[in-house]
Amino acid sequence: MTVYDVIDAKKKKRALTAEQIGYFVARVADGGATDSQIAAFCMATLLNGMTEEECFYLTDAMTESGERSPRPAGGGVFADKHSTGGVSDSTTLILVPVLASLGVKCAKYSGRGLAHTGGTLDKLESFAGLRVDLSPAEFEGQVARVGAAIAGQTEKVDPADKHMYAVRDVTATVDSVPLIASSVMSKKLASFADIILLDVKYGDGAFMHTPEEALSLAQLMVRIGERAGRKMLASVTCMDEPLGDGIGCNAEVNEVCAILRGEKENDLSRLSLDHAARILAAAERIPLEEAEGRAYGALRSGAALKKLGEIVAAQGGRAEDVLSPLPMAEHKVVVRAAGDGYLRISALALGRACAALGGGRAREGDPVDHAVGILLKKRQGDLVRRGEALAEAYTRGGAEEGIALAEGAFALSDQKIKDRPLVFATIGGKE
Amino acid sequence: MTVYDVIDAKKKKRALTAEQIGYFVARVADGGATDSQIAAFCMATLLNGMTEEECFYLTDAMTESGERSPRPAGGGVFADKHSTGGVSDSTTLILVPVLASLGVKCAKYSGRGLAHTGGTLDKLESFAGLRVDLSPAEFEGQVARVGAAIAGQTEKVDPADKHMYAVRDVTATVDSVPLIASSVMSKKLASFADIILLDVKYGDGAFMHTPEEALSLAQLMVRIGERAGRKMLASVTCMDEPLGDGIGCNAEVNEVCAILRGEKENDLSRLSLDHAARILAAAERIPLEEAEGRAYGALRSGAALKKLGEIVAAQGGRAEDVLSPLPMAEHKVVVRAAGDGYLRISALALGRACAALGGGRAREGDPVDHAVGILLKKRQGDLVRRGEALAEAYTRGGAEEGIALAEGAFALSDQKIKDRPLVFATIGGKE
Repeated sequence: MTVYDVIDAKKKKRALTAEQIGYFVARVADGGATDSQIAAFCMATLLNGMTEEECFYLTDAMTESGERSPRPAGGGVFADKHSTGGVSDSTTLILVPVLASLGVKCAKYSGRGLAHTGGTLDKLESFAGLRVDLSPAEFEGQVARVGAAIAGQTEKVDPADKHMYAVRDVTATVDSVPLIASSVMSKKLASFADIILLDVKYGDGAFMHTPEEALSLAQLMVRIGERAGRKMLASVTCMDEPLGDGIGCNAEVNEVCAILRGEKENDLSRLSLDHAARILAAAERIPLEEAEGRAYGALRSGAALKKLGEIVAAQGGRAEDVLSPLPMAEHKVVVRAAGDGYLRISALALGRACAALGGGRAREGDPVDHAVGILLKKRQGDLVRRGEALAEAYTRGGAEEGIALAEGAFALSDQKIKDRPLVFATIGGKE
Repeated sequence: MTVYDVIDAKKKKRALTAEQIGYFVARVADGGATDSQIAAFCMATLLNGMTEEECFYLTDAMTESGERSPRPAGGGVFADKHSTGGVSDSTTLILVPVLASLGVKCAKYSGRGLAHTGGTLDKLESFAGLRVDLSPAEFEGQVARVGAAIAGQTEKVDPADKHMYAVRDVTATVDSVPLIASSVMSKKLASFADIILLDVKYGDGAFMHTPEEALSLAQLMVRIGERAGRKMLASVTCMDEPLGDGIGCNAEVNEVCAILRGEKENDLSRLSLDHAARILAAAERIPLEEAEGRAYGALRSGAALKKLGEIVAAQGGRAEDVLSPLPMAEHKVVVRAAGDGYLRISALALGRACAALGGGRAREGDPVDHAVGILLKKRQGDLVRRGEALAEAYTRGGAEEGIALAEGAFALSDQKIKDRPLVFATIGGKE
């Protein structure tokens, strides 16, 4: 068998065997496959598809390509959550402290943003002094002591996925259902979470454009996880407009803290608590309504805010930084309505605007400016008048391109906007 | 515009503009596109296809990516011929001296074999001392003086194709009609031939498996050439069994010289003279029958053999080497019929057998053993008896794998084999 043979078979629409996929992934991990061969395989897979069995094999092979994260000592139920990515999606930073304050341990491995805005790790680094490069011992110790840790997965976990993703990122082969499913789930299965909630986005700012596509991706990932014996939950949620009002690291962290301080309630807070309640219900085997009550209780009581402070402090930051907003960049530009009408907002365009301001990264290793960003003052569907403030952009000055992109993210319509549902479907957790 | 955008558009089955294709090819040539991006583009093109317009743009852009070969001084009509590749296809080494002896100048740029057996340049190097790395001045001088030269095209001609082909070769993206057509024709258009004959192979030992596929590739290449103002001829010919009886560099050169000495007549000699006559008819604007008479005359008179000797001598070899066979490797193994029946022969399997004996190269730059090879003693469709000699393999000893592959190339049938026609179709040259 050669790498060439495996590519050729997928090109010819043949279903690959476990041996073929295992061989290919092992060569991706050990350097026996060239980047060009990985790219050809990914494009053939994107265009010709994979059966569910092939996707199982691919996930397994990627998981096996590296080390597994050790399960922290001390027992308990461990939860994990993954979003397929969207704009102003900071649910992790809300649901982790809510769950940890309720006794569900969150040993959360997160990523950095490679797209328009920073990822969860970038946002966490908005807290001065906070470290996300925890050693396995530090990570386990913190989970046992604080009940939660959020850090980057080590290079030794799932090296095949890291290599493959770097190739996919530059070859227009990210948006393939079997490649997304195996990439997400191989990393999850290399970790030890008992309960995994997947938030699969659809819409303008997501890889999956229709809710049906997103649902089918969610179902596939749920089957992969269940096959590996994990308790799987999934939500298919809308990413037409940004989930929250803040876009950019500090802006999103400020919104998270405002929600945890009880100062704000919106789609972001509702979806985060919905996720938290579903995970809690599965962890404690209690009815969803009861879990919802406890999740909202953790917010109202300030327990979740306190827990976020503990997590920040445990990772090297200052606990008191969750109590007041982080500073935004010095230049504020107000984006105003160009006329009257019902507002339509493009999450994708606002993500690109944030990247153009310096708040995203074009390639791995690029720095991210935490203080630039955009604050939405209106939501999709709002009836606005000419000249009304739609958003504030915080920049380092100049920034014409970012401002122009932000302005282009808003459109006005004579007719009322028919919003697509925030939660289109959920899987699991209903028994 | 970015390389990513161009890949993404082809992935989405969009027809690319001249600007998009020009941008992509320029980045292939200047290193702005990674090998992974080239591979993704090629796989997307292979699976999603290209319109004829896109293929024109791709050919033009590749031709423009490098230098053009200068037209030799002294005038005259220049002919070129290209085969899409097969086993025991030495037509170039026959038709070039035939045409040159009749006054049609052949400034022939050829390649090395990357597949099972050596290419034309490798075969030429079977003549001791012969050089194929002629400088442009040497090449032009020889064409003016001798009427023909056969050499490698310089690195500066069509660099985009060289880079793209190296990627295609390891990523299972060679067998794409638009990629083959643009690769062949961009090199031809970078040269100055007035008349170009394309021999497009179909069958077991060719990239195109059916004659219809091969015809459609031939038609596309003819339109590309005519659009650039060249006189185009094409033949769609069968490559189920090897064209000649010799497989391997010395074996094929020996067969060529035997044909030119008038000692042998077979499919290889007939197809070579057919090609030569069609080119001659187009060059001299004479009826095909008259051209055939002259071509056979050049063979019978010994003029073509003498011309091959002149070419060999002009490029550093010894003219007298065309008069007697070159030596074959020292170990001879006879492959015998395993039973009675009508013989079926696989060109592909014999090509692989020759490569396993050391007569092909796995990657660019590998050495080729000129003296190993296979001599066919029977042809497809022959009725043979158990124990009869089917072929002789010339090896360096051991060589179990090559022998086994050679044995596997022969099958016996109770029923008479229905041969597919050697020449399925021709294009051009009938006016």
